[in-house]
Parts: sequence; C-alpha cells; structure tokens
Amino acid sequence: MTPEPAAPADELFSEERSAEVVAESFAGTPDPRLRQVMTSLVRHLHDFVKDVELTEAEWEAAVDFLTRTGQTCTPTRQEFILLSDVLGVSMLVETINHRTGGTATESTVLGPFHMVASPARHLGDDIALDGKGTPCLVSGRVAGPDGEPLAGATVDVWQTNEDGFYDVQQPGIQPEGNLRGIFTTDEDGRFWFRSVVPRFYPIPDDGPVGRLLAATGRHPNRPAHLHFIAEAAGHRSVTTHVFVADSPYLDSDAVFGVKDSLVRETPEVDDPARAAELGLPNPFRTLTFDLSLLPSASDR
Amino acid sequence: MTPEPAAPADELFSEERSAEVVAESFAGTPDPRLRQVMTSLVRHLHDFVKDVELTEAEWEAAVDFLTRTGQTCTPTRQEFILLSDVLGVSMLVETINHRTGGTATESTVLGPFHMVASPARHLGDDIALDGKGTPCLVSGRVAGPDGEPLAGATVDVWQTNEDGFYDVQQPGIQPEGNLRGIFTTDEDGRFWFRSVVPRFYPIPDDGPVGRLLAATGRHPNRPAHLHFIAEAAGHRSVTTHVFVADSPYLDSDAVFGVKDSLVRETPEVDDPARAAELGLPNPFRTLTFDLSLLPSASDR
Repeated sequence: MTPEPAAPADELFSEERSAEVVAESFAGTPDPRLRQVMTSLVRHLHDFVKDVELTEAEWEAAVDFLTRTGQTCTPTRQEFILLSDVLGVSMLVETINHRTGGTATESTVLGPFHMVASPARHLGDDIALDGKGTPCLVSGRVAGPDGEPLAGATVDVWQTNEDGFYDVQQPGIQPEGNLRGIFTTDEDGRFWFRSVVPRFYPIPDDGPVGRLLAATGRHPNRPAHLHFIAEAAGHRSVTTHVFVADSPYLDSDAVFGVKDSLVRETPEVDDPARAAELGLPNPFRTLTFDLSLLPSASDR
Repeated sequence: MTPEPAAPADELFSEERSAEVVAESFAGTPDPRLRQVMTSLVRHLHDFVKDVELTEAEWEAAVDFLTRTGQTCTPTRQEFILLSDVLGVSMLVETINHRTGGTATESTVLGPFHMVASPARHLGDDIALDGKGTPCLVSGRVAGPDGEPLAGATVDVWQTNEDGFYDVQQPGIQPEGNLRGIFTTDEDGRFWFRSVVPRFYPIPDDGPVGRLLAATGRHPNRPAHLHFIAEAAGHRSVTTHVFVADSPYLDSDAVFGVKDSLVRETPEVDDPARAAELGLPNPFRTLTFDLSLLPSASDR
C-alpha cells in the first residue's frame, strides 16, 4: 500500500479549497441544523460563483441589487419574498414541506399579501365591498381523506380587486377588508360566499425584482386566482389557490404557483330565482372548489 | 429505432423539475451572460433548498435576515459586502478574477472601507494623524515582472487606527484622511511613509452579520493588516493587504483574506540618527512590502 499523502500544511483560503475552508469555519456552530444549513449554503454558493466565474462588476451589481431589495421592503411590501417567488424558491419550499402524495388538496405559495387577520364572515356574505368586477358565487366543501365532511372548518380567502390590488396594498383607497374574509363551514362541511371573478394581475414590478424580470424578458403577471387557507381540528391545514381556467398567464405564472389540480372553470348561471335568493345579479358566475385535508397524524 | 418519447405535456412546477422550470423562464433573457448567470443561480439555489429540505420557518428567517441586512446598509456601512466577506464569496470572486500564477503579488479583498478618495501624500509623510499607536516606517518597492523598478506608480494605502476603526467609520472623531493616503514611487520604484503598526480589529458586528457570526460560534476579527492598491502605467493593478506576522487571528481571518505570501514581520529598529532623519521616535518598527505587477498585456 502506498502511504496516505500528508494533510496539506496550508489551511488558508485558495480557489480550489474555498468551500471547504469556509465550511470549516462553521464547524463550531452549536446548533447542528444551523451548521448543516450554513455548510450546504457555502458549498452551493461557491459552486455557483465558480461555475459562472462571477466578475467583480457582476458581484458589485449583485451586492447593489440585494441592498436595494432590502431597502424596498416596508411594512406592506416584502421585496425579498417577491425575489424568492420569481426564482421559484417560495414554491419549492412550499412543495417540499407539504408533500401530499396526491391524496389531498395540493398547496401553493402563500404570497406576500396575507398580512392582516381577515374579518370573520357569515356564509353567503359578499366580500366584494368595492362594487367592482363580475359577480361570482364561490362555494365548496371541506372534507377529510375519506370524503367525510369537516364541519366547523375555517376557510380564509383573499383576492385582488378588479384593478389588480389587494386591500392591504391600497389602504384608504379600497374599503378595509375588501375581498378577504374567514368563513366557517356548516354541518356538511360546506362554505359559500359572494365575490367577483378573480383576475390576473402583475406582482409589484416597480422595484428591483420588477427590473430583474424586465431585464430577463419575463412578464410580472400572475394568472387569476383566489387564495385559500383551510384549517380543521385534527387535520393538516392547507395553503393554496384556486386558479381560473380561462385566465391569461396560466402557463407562465411569474411565481410558478399553478398546479393542474387547482384550476377550475367559472361557468355562468342564468337563474333569476337563485340569483335573487343569493343576493346576486342575474346572470352570475360560479366557482366551485372542494378541499380535502389530511389528518394531523400524517404530519411529517 | 424506438421512437423518441413525447415531451411531457405538463411543464408546470414540480419538486423534481423545479430548477428546469424556473431556468426555462429565463430562456428569453436578451443578454446571454445574464441568462447564463440566472440559470446557474437557479440551479444551485434549488439544489441547496433540496439538499437541506429548508423548512418554512427557516425560509421566513432567511427572508427576515436578508431584509435586515439590506436595511442595515447606509452610505458608510455595507452589510451585504460583510455578508459576502464572511461567507468567503468576496475572497473567491477576488481570487478568480486575479489569478497570478504565482508570478506577481497576490491580491486579497478590497473590503468595504475604501469609500472615499484618499489624499495625495509626499514620500515620508506621516499618515497617523491622531497620534495613537506604535510608530512604524512602511516602505517597499513596486516592480514589474522581471524586477524592473516602476517609477511613478501609485500606492494607495489605508488601515484602522489603534482603536480598530477606519477614518470613514468615525467622521468627526478621527481627523479626516487619518491613516490613508496615495503615494507615488520615486525613480527606483520606491515608496516610504510613516504610520503605526496595524492592529487586529473586529468587522462591524452589531448588525445581522454579527449575529450570524455569534450564532455560528465564529469571532468577527481580522488579523492586523494594511491595505494596498498599487497601480502603474502598462501594468495590472493589484488590490491587496500586507499582514502583520505576529497578529492574533492570522489563521482565522473572519473574511478569509490571509495568504501566506502577504505576511510580513515588523522588526524594531534602534537607530537614533535614522529615526531623527525620518521624523520618528527611537526605537521604531518597520514594515517592508515589495510589490510585483504583471504587465497589462496579460489581462484576462
């Protein structure tokens, strides 16, 4: 056998050993999970820099971009979440942490606009407080894995108005709580409320992330969707959207949130008696979205 | 021959295909270099998230950390450069972009404190304007690759004072231009000036990067060093430091800047006549650092 070569005497930084040397600096991290995360981050980050042989001008541009991204954040705007969204990282984290094995409603991104507690609503209420848009009855059923109805489940919903903005983006312009609310399912696990057909909208694109999209030839739009968080005692909650089937951008969501299983048609109903009963103009559109939750016991 | 399998009908996001789907969204980037950088970034970033199976709480903590890092930046503080420094990214970019093949003075990180144009000085001037520290004659010679002296080369130097701060960190406390200056070499390529022996100091550790270092059991210190940028007509400039051989933290620089070839002793000289000639107290310390520049023709 040939003898092992001696360990290198020089443990200083070099291009070849950069990731090992820096990872080694994290070897004393008391929390093993933080040590694992930092070590992996350093290896992948150094691999990236070496792969593209990042120039100094590009590094300076990256520092400037990240600084501006941080400085664009306000109490009602989270530009780093937008960055994570357009790089598909938010969707990847959501997907990794909510694997369903195809047996329950799939999740998608929370997005940056679930910033305030939505008001509690009664079944049948109208959440379109600004009177804009195409009236729509949204309804569905929350069930367990074997289809058993989940009575008393909460369904937290929010969507943009016809102008493409969430209420939290337009304080003083939209009525407070416009197009958002928390409903509680009835004894059959059912919920229903009045709203308007969701429409596509651009994510905020007047900041660094918008400029990145423009520079890379990407549009900033999300296809029309309505956000849901469904929660029921003894079950895993799900954060998801329902997408409108005929929306533009369904195949190029700026934040990669679309899953086939979450797309629904919004057929028109022409039934004056039913419209009057619901308090909707006739005809009206309908959007039906049933949700299936896994039991808590299957939490990872 | 067997027929090619059909392309998958579903190009939507999935855990397995996340990096391809997101990289594909950058396929229309007009600038090919930006397309290359974004594609590589997405692949390495998704690999990292999958490697560690980042949790949602960790993702939120990362968003918060990056936001605070951006918001800590001011005209005199660049927290993202500090972050790049402590992750070894600054040093890696510097090294990749200034490969010398061992034939010239090695480079190291610029650091975040070269923020203002330093004042022009005369050879022999004293840059220690605050009267603190251990007096030291700094001298050296700037030469080309065959040892030929480079007359009229400029040597831009800066260091912390005895309290561990650069002048730009303490406006109104340190005299303006304290411990920095630009010298021009004489006909033999020589430079000399009066200063003080550099001392180790912590990088600013009262922000998010300092808290990261604390959480990972790392100290924030840099070993004692004096910054140099040497420039000469017809030659590649070099951004580097000279490190003090007996400094603490020489083997654990918080920003990974140390290279063996850049470490020098600071021997004491006891020579009253020489001290009087130089305008230094006797005895005094000396730091000698010769620099060798490559011709511009070898620019990459």
